[in-house]
This record gives sequence, structure tokens and C-alpha cells, in this order.
Amino acid sequence: MKGIVVLGSTGSIGQQTLDVVRRFPEELSVVGLSAWSNKGLLLKQAQEFRPAFVSCQDGPLPGPLPPGTQRASLGEMLADPRVDLAMVATVGAAGLLPIMEAIRNGKSVALANKEPVVMAGDIITAEARRAGVQLLPVDSEPSAIWQCLQGEERPPARLILTASGGALREMPLEELEKVTPEEALKHPTWKMGKKITIDSATLMNKAFEVIEAHWLFGIPYAKIDVVIHPQSIVHSLVEFPDGSLKAQLSYPDMRLPIQYALCYPRRPPNDGLPHLDLIRTAALTFEPLDTGRYPCFTLGLEAARLGGTYPTVLAAADEVAVDLFLRRRLPFTDIPRLVERVLSQHVPRQAPALEDILAADTWARNEALAPAEV
Amino acid sequence: MKGIVVLGSTGSIGQQTLDVVRRFPEELSVVGLSAWSNKGLLLKQAQEFRPAFVSCQDGPLPGPLPPGTQRASLGEMLADPRVDLAMVATVGAAGLLPIMEAIRNGKSVALANKEPVVMAGDIITAEARRAGVQLLPVDSEPSAIWQCLQGEERPPARLILTASGGALREMPLEELEKVTPEEALKHPTWKMGKKITIDSATLMNKAFEVIEAHWLFGIPYAKIDVVIHPQSIVHSLVEFPDGSLKAQLSYPDMRLPIQYALCYPRRPPNDGLPHLDLIRTAALTFEPLDTGRYPCFTLGLEAARLGGTYPTVLAAADEVAVDLFLRRRLPFTDIPRLVERVLSQHVPRQAPALEDILAADTWARNEALAPAEV
Repeated sequence: MKGIVVLGSTGSIGQQTLDVVRRFPEELSVVGLSAWSNKGLLLKQAQEFRPAFVSCQDGPLPGPLPPGTQRASLGEMLADPRVDLAMVATVGAAGLLPIMEAIRNGKSVALANKEPVVMAGDIITAEARRAGVQLLPVDSEPSAIWQCLQGEERPPARLILTASGGALREMPLEELEKVTPEEALKHPTWKMGKKITIDSATLMNKAFEVIEAHWLFGIPYAKIDVVIHPQSIVHSLVEFPDGSLKAQLSYPDMRLPIQYALCYPRRPPNDGLPHLDLIRTAALTFEPLDTGRYPCFTLGLEAARLGGTYPTVLAAADEVAVDLFLRRRLPFTDIPRLVERVLSQHVPRQAPALEDILAADTWARNEALAPAEV
Repeated sequence: MKGIVVLGSTGSIGQQTLDVVRRFPEELSVVGLSAWSNKGLLLKQAQEFRPAFVSCQDGPLPGPLPPGTQRASLGEMLADPRVDLAMVATVGAAGLLPIMEAIRNGKSVALANKEPVVMAGDIITAEARRAGVQLLPVDSEPSAIWQCLQGEERPPARLILTASGGALREMPLEELEKVTPEEALKHPTWKMGKKITIDSATLMNKAFEVIEAHWLFGIPYAKIDVVIHPQSIVHSLVEFPDGSLKAQLSYPDMRLPIQYALCYPRRPPNDGLPHLDLIRTAALTFEPLDTGRYPCFTLGLEAARLGGTYPTVLAAADEVAVDLFLRRRLPFTDIPRLVERVLSQHVPRQAPALEDILAADTWARNEALAPAEV
């Protein structure tokens, strides 16, 4: 029996995580649930799963907890000996400190929230090595790479991340300025949370994945490629030194990589997951990434290569920019402009400690919200 | 240093095997070479690789052997303690007894010649288990499956073998009767020997691969599918119980699976192998197999499911039929008719011993050459 806490249990990945847990009652048990503000759903989840702990950052729940369930801080939850694995399905920078806390408590961490790795990949991976805990990717692309690396000597020759191209891949460039949040949220292949869906439309999400893959698999940036694959069937590929490639394929459904991380290294059958029918699948195509269409991707890779606190600032500025866009206070095409402005004003720190990361994050958020000097 | 004997060194796979060996002089050493009748090339190969042994079934070589090289029987070669691995790149049934000999001598066997596994899969795999030796697939499809199974729990849920569809995939059915050997030998994606190229045009080769995969990976026939994939980039796929699929991809080049078998589990870089460029690759498509076009495939699977000596008879009758076709003594569309006639007249033996296999092989060849009762 694997004891799990789900941080961000009421979000898209959190709910799908519980959907997987429901399928494996003999194997997975929910020890803790935590959510930001969807208190009604959190209470319902607590009533169904009867975890030892719930945590809600936003005041009291709208009803009594089931017997045996108590409120607790994230720190108490993550220190509990019944917990084996923390599913971190929070959004943006919020996951960073809980991830560090889980690692220090010797818990495996399933990473559905990639911004913390973008912000502090060096610190997180070093701490995980020190504590001897596993970092399990949950995003479909790093999960695909992780699956393809099973049983193979490391390092591979090259990683090839696939990208659907997001909701606006075919929109004429001159129309991008007027894109509404509703249009940008219509992802062609994946149903996901709002932040990641906008990051997919700008391809910032793909830059984040490159950074995440760099840290999780220890691969230099020069050996990580990105190709546009509009069908979202091939979730990523690995090239080996002999020139052979392996790919992982499935219909786009986050429950598969979630289950893989939760049950690893086992692959129990799950009738709830659709099985890929290659015959009925559209032709699989791969196209070069048009960097002119996706300035956020270029900015992201630049920040990654510069290193130090730049990726932290990248993630923080992007989080502010996406939030402003979703609240109709920033045009879509100003997302990269805002991120670029903040990056260009940053005085970086190399080999930052966790405090430096947190300071850079705060600085970048303030800077992003400051009126632009025109 | 891995000591290798190459059986069938002057054929297509034999020559490509030596091409791989040339790239890894620190790792692979040729201990023995054997060929059927291409004595000039065998002598040249002996002069280049200076093996301890050469064997030629067809009389003296056209010149002196280099110092340190002597003629030997296959049995002497395969018993030599310097030999670690036998690359069996012979054609048709000819590989069966050498494979058994290699296994009994405790040598790993790289299987480029699949007919022996079709004829006697049960006996070969049981003998390999008893002797504790590895059977390493060399054909691109079973190699792909083997690569995809690395590091995964067995059994997988399903194997999906890809088939290019051969040289005649798009020829109107009514024209197949008049197909010449030259037309049937124009394989769209692979350069191979004549027998396997004709077997690819009839798809008998794919039935053989299903049988080979059944024995090598221990998968029931009901869990092995075949799809037409005209681009020959995805060499096969494995589906796991959780619904995730892995595929192995590369340009069609036999040197890759040969190298994988020779260097397994390592994947050393080889500048001589082309690296797949996904962007420049045509869209990858998967189509159902049109069994009306490929009666040999259906016959092959029927023989496989019936088991006993039927697959032996299948392989033997096909070998005679393909030979007759190549010598213009049988129309292309009579290949399945001849195979079906022989199968229908066979009195099978279940759980056959090796002598029963050899007897069924001889019977089928005689029967195939006997004038048809009309």
C-alpha cells in the first residue's frame, strides 16, 4: 500500500490523481489532501477518501470533516510516516516549498507542477539526491522520456520533446494581439488547468519542459530538441547513441502519466484509460518549431542557458503575465514583452541558494506588476 | 572482446554484420566465417578479418587462406571457446541445425534467419533456456520489440508488428498474377536478400515474424497484431497493461538491429548509421492489413495456430515456392496456392521432436515439388 498526499487536489491534475487512486484501492491510499480555495470540493474529496489530513489555505471548510480526518498544516502532513509519495499538483511557484519539505522528509515527489523545477531545478535535484528520494515526472512529455529511458544506459544521445503547438498554432500572427482568454484556453488536444493551457499557447510551457528535462534527466540543453507534433499522440522521444529512437504513445490523457508515477515501476491495467488505436489515428506528423510565432519559447531557453536566478525570474514574470492576460489586463502578445522586460532588468545571482531563489521570485513579481517604463 | 562467428557471411545480413564489426575493433572480433557458395567474397572477408576459421560448404576457395586461418566444419567453429556469439545469417531452413549446435555449445545466438524459429520455435527456445543462452533477434521488427521491452515488467499487453506491405502493396490485385521476380524484388524501403524480399511481397515474412515474436517473447498469438506502415520508420510497438505504448524508430537500415544484437546491452555510437530526422520524415501512417491481398499471411497464421509440424511445413513449402517463383517456374499468385496445397496434405505431429521437424521439412519439400493433382 502506497500512502499519498495530493497537494492541489481540487485542480485538474489533483482530480485526475484521485480518479486514478479510485481504481487501485488495494495499492494506493490517500493520507492527505490539500487545496487552495475550492473548499466545497475539498470537503467532498475528504468525505470520499477519508484521509488522515486535510489542509486548506483559505479558512474553514463548509461542513464537518469525516471521522478520522483532521486539519493539518502541509508540514505536518508531509512529515507523517504513512506518507510515501507527495503528488505536487499545485500551480506556479506555490509548489516549491512543499516539494523541498517533502524531499527533506524522505518522500518521493510526483511532479505535476513544473515551475518549481524551472525556478530551482539545481536545488531540488541536489536535495533529492542527498535525501535519496525519487522525483517522478507527471507531465506527459517528461513521463514519456522517463518511460523510454527504462532499462537503457544513460546518458541518452538526445531528447526530443513534442509540442502540440497550442490553441493558436494556426492563427495568423497579426491576429494574436486580439486573442481572448477564451480563445487561448481552447487547447486542441489536452484538457488542463488555465495557467498551463495559456503557457501551451505561448509555448512557454515547452521551454519549462526543456528546463525540467534538463534537471530531471541530467541532459545538456544542446541535446534537447523540440518538434511540433499537432496530434499529441507521440508524447516525446529519446535518441540513443546508436541512433535508435524510442517513443512513448497514447491518446492525450493525463491519467496515464499520473498512474505511471503513482504505480511506478508497475503498469497495472486500468479499464478507465482509452487504448490507442493506431489505425484510427490520424497520420503522425512532426514539424519544426516556428520561433517567430513563439517568442516565449526563445525567451525561456535564453533564461535557461543563462542560468542562475534567470529561470526563477522567467517563471515568476510569466505567472504574473498569464494572470494579467486571463484577467484581460494584458494583450496576449504582451506576455513575452512583459517577461522580456523583467528578465532584462534582472541582476542575476549565480549558484543561488533557496533564499536567493525566493528573493528573485518576489523581485520579479513586483517588477512585473510595476508600470512599464516606456 | 566478444568473439563472433558469422554463418552466411557473404549474404546481405552477413556483409552488413561485418560492416558493423569493422566499426568496433576493440569490442568485436571475428572468430569464424561461413558461406554457402560465394567463395571469392568469403576469401576476401577471410583476408580482411583473419578469423581462426572459415567454412565453405561448396569446395575449395579460389586462393590461399591468410596465416592463422584454417578451414573447419561448422561444428568445430561453434565449439571453439573463443566464440561468444553466433550470428546466424543463413537463408531458410539451413540455419536450424547450426542454431541448435550453437545453443548446445553455450553460445548466444543472433537470429537473422527466422525460418528455423518458425520451424522449431518450441525446441529452440526450450534448448536455449536449458543451456542458459540468449537468443538475440536481429530482424528489425523483433529487435524493435526487444528494445521496447527493456526495463519493463513482462508480459506486455500486446505486440504490434509493423509491415511495409512489400513491393506490390499498391498493385491492382488482377495484375499480381503476371508479376515478375524483378518487380517483386523492388522492396520500397529495405534492401535485403531475395528470399526475404519475396516473403515481404507476399507478407509471408510477416506471418513468420508473428511466429518468431510468439516464441522469442512468449506472447500468445491473440496478442500480436500487424499493421501496415508504409514508411518503415516505426519498426514495431509494444502496448503495456496500463495502455501506454512504446515504439522504436529509425531509418530502415539493418545495421542498427545487427549492432544492437552484437553490442547488447550497450548502444555505442556508430557514425556510419543515419540518424532519423523526424522533421524531414514523411507523415507516419498505420493502415489495416488487407488479408485479401496477402493470402500467405492468413495461411501462415493458420499454420501457427494449428502448431505441431504445420509451421515447419509452412516454411518448407514457402521456401520451395519462392525458389520456383524466382526461377520463373511459378506465377507469383501460385505461391500461396502451392503452400496451401502442401499444408492441406500434411498429417501433422504435435509436440514434435527435432527428428520430426526435419522429417516434416523433407516431406514438405518433396510434396511441394510433386506435380499438383488438378
